[in-house]
Amino acid sequence: MSRTLPSARIRQLRPTTVNRILDEARQLQAQGKPLVSLMRGQPDAPTPPHVVDAVERAVRAGRTGYPDNQGEPGLRQAVAEKLARDQELTYDPGREILVTDGATQGIALALGVLLEPGDEVLLPDPIYDAYQSPIALWGGRAVSVASSIRGSRFSFDRAALEASHTARSRVLLLNSPWNPVGTVLTRAELAEALDFAMAHDLWVISDEIYEALIYDGRQHVSPAQLSDDARQRTVLVNSLSKTYGMTGWRVGYCAAPANVIQALLLLMQQSSRGPATFVQDAAAVALRGDQQGVRQLTVEYQGRRDQVLTALQGIPGVAAMKPEGGLFVIADVRGLGLPCDEVRRRLLHDAGVVVIHGTAYGPGGEGTLRISFAAGGATLERGLEQLRAGLLRLAGDRSA
Amino acid sequence: MSRTLPSARIRQLRPTTVNRILDEARQLQAQGKPLVSLMRGQPDAPTPPHVVDAVERAVRAGRTGYPDNQGEPGLRQAVAEKLARDQELTYDPGREILVTDGATQGIALALGVLLEPGDEVLLPDPIYDAYQSPIALWGGRAVSVASSIRGSRFSFDRAALEASHTARSRVLLLNSPWNPVGTVLTRAELAEALDFAMAHDLWVISDEIYEALIYDGRQHVSPAQLSDDARQRTVLVNSLSKTYGMTGWRVGYCAAPANVIQALLLLMQQSSRGPATFVQDAAAVALRGDQQGVRQLTVEYQGRRDQVLTALQGIPGVAAMKPEGGLFVIADVRGLGLPCDEVRRRLLHDAGVVVIHGTAYGPGGEGTLRISFAAGGATLERGLEQLRAGLLRLAGDRSA
Repeated sequence: MSRTLPSARIRQLRPTTVNRILDEARQLQAQGKPLVSLMRGQPDAPTPPHVVDAVERAVRAGRTGYPDNQGEPGLRQAVAEKLARDQELTYDPGREILVTDGATQGIALALGVLLEPGDEVLLPDPIYDAYQSPIALWGGRAVSVASSIRGSRFSFDRAALEASHTARSRVLLLNSPWNPVGTVLTRAELAEALDFAMAHDLWVISDEIYEALIYDGRQHVSPAQLSDDARQRTVLVNSLSKTYGMTGWRVGYCAAPANVIQALLLLMQQSSRGPATFVQDAAAVALRGDQQGVRQLTVEYQGRRDQVLTALQGIPGVAAMKPEGGLFVIADVRGLGLPCDEVRRRLLHDAGVVVIHGTAYGPGGEGTLRISFAAGGATLERGLEQLRAGLLRLAGDRSA
Repeated sequence: MSRTLPSARIRQLRPTTVNRILDEARQLQAQGKPLVSLMRGQPDAPTPPHVVDAVERAVRAGRTGYPDNQGEPGLRQAVAEKLARDQELTYDPGREILVTDGATQGIALALGVLLEPGDEVLLPDPIYDAYQSPIALWGGRAVSVASSIRGSRFSFDRAALEASHTARSRVLLLNSPWNPVGTVLTRAELAEALDFAMAHDLWVISDEIYEALIYDGRQHVSPAQLSDDARQRTVLVNSLSKTYGMTGWRVGYCAAPANVIQALLLLMQQSSRGPATFVQDAAAVALRGDQQGVRQLTVEYQGRRDQVLTALQGIPGVAAMKPEGGLFVIADVRGLGLPCDEVRRRLLHDAGVVVIHGTAYGPGGEGTLRISFAAGGATLERGLEQLRAGLLRLAGDRSA
């Protein structure tokens, strides 16, 4: 018989929607049902050969002892160079950069350092659902900033930000390119958000992991670029996962003022010593090496995005929104007259295709589906065929 | 100007003693002072070639996508086989094993799952200092179990355990082989501790990372081996770091009842997805492969231990204690008539050798030094020469 666990801390935590739907999908597969997944944000591009070579060299060279807990100096230097090259941002690799076990850890640490119990984190709705539990873990409260669809694009304005503010507001969490809705916040939109943060003296956590996946010639802007004040109040969180086909390598980083980095490191050391030493060497090579592969990736994914948009044309009651960045198309399925979770469930069971319902990302996602084009080739082709067939059937049911 | 951080959570955290003394040593080195370190618990054995080969194969085979957050099934299977082979313990790899970013993460997660704010963790004094901060992080309180030196060996008894118990006691944390004192708890000693845990319905967290480094034919026993009840209340924490020359690989594991593993995983997912996928493949090879290297390691380290004991003979006021396991010799320096931190400081500044004072591990360490023999060869030889010379000088000052 198993002993009962104290669970107040654990009870408030949730597995991510992806993990819950993975479980559901695995059960169906175990019953022999073939499924195609258009769900996860894992690019199918392999890690580039020069990065694979680098990890081999490092491990052969005996780079297998404890890493510097703040991050190996060479990798911190490479991060500083990347931020200077791509964002024109100057961070001191000695004091203002921390290497993390992926952006997941960067976000958790930033929340842990900035939140006191009862503090509120403002975050646009809908948004990546895995922010909720780490906020709760540190005793914080997630507060939605309402977004709206203007010109086939999700955005939020100063009025929505102000409406979410209370005396306990402490952090504004931004994610651009914005998962799941695909908006790339413009410099003007970021300036509005940072003005708001300054007016109320909020910290900003900026999750920038999809920065390389931006389409139609748009540019990624980090809130830290906007002004000295913005840089002082921003914890920039990023990872190599999506940009370099390195999701399974678990390497990310934070850039922030020195006192924040010091606190992040101290909190990190309670559960981690950072990524494997030889992995850090390879990560430095990825950041410093030829970036041609990254540009090709963008072209490739823009093509896949357009493939999804084409596949969703002409389905009564379904309108696809063209994302500016990221790995997902949001389909507005309100015209089908069913709750989006029910649409998701029917597509899973009747059409054998796995997507995620918008309400998994907050009430603001009602009436939508998130369709991933992270996988390409035959998977995407077959997935889109089954998705289209499933949606047409639901549209037919509706009109019948 | 940097913004002030909310710091209630962070203020209670401390860097480990190793990290603080590393900073002090680096400052001296920057001033041109040559130092020899007999401080860290990092074996100098390289990772075995078959494990290096395995990581290369894995990364070449494209094992670079997201890992299973609970741990890759192959590695969980290898952990289960290892526990059956070495400890005669049966754990279900599907539900009772979690792969972690090193034992550091395993300990932090176990404390996070088992502690409610205000709960007390009983732990022998002196002990590895890095348990204190994660206990504080989750709102717990570390309570010392007094140990005493009997026959040149640190131990604690039922009376000491009972004396530390209160209504808020929740977890007994054990570490055998015991860092820093080198005691390997016997089956009888563990049985006494587990009887105590059962009498007061405590959980047991068992940190077993030095299990392979045990000397003079002794055997490692896990508290989970003692009885069904013991297994039900124990979270077994281990890592590949010390056993396989893999400190920088950051791979460990927990074994525990299924409901505990489920809670550990949920807490882990808030900040981590587990070690890199290809690193997990290599870790499985280390656990499953030929264990001859591990036996050689034990012989090698027993020799180094004896080298330290020899070097410390015949110094007035200094008595070395012979460790049964681990990587450290405790030297009783009470006869020098100085606080042990002062002895450490003088050895650092006057003899150029870095060791750690016993009080870094709790008041029970007063009057002792921890001398690491993790490094061997010329480093150990030179370090021991300088240590001996420094201690003889202090002994001379004393008698002068």
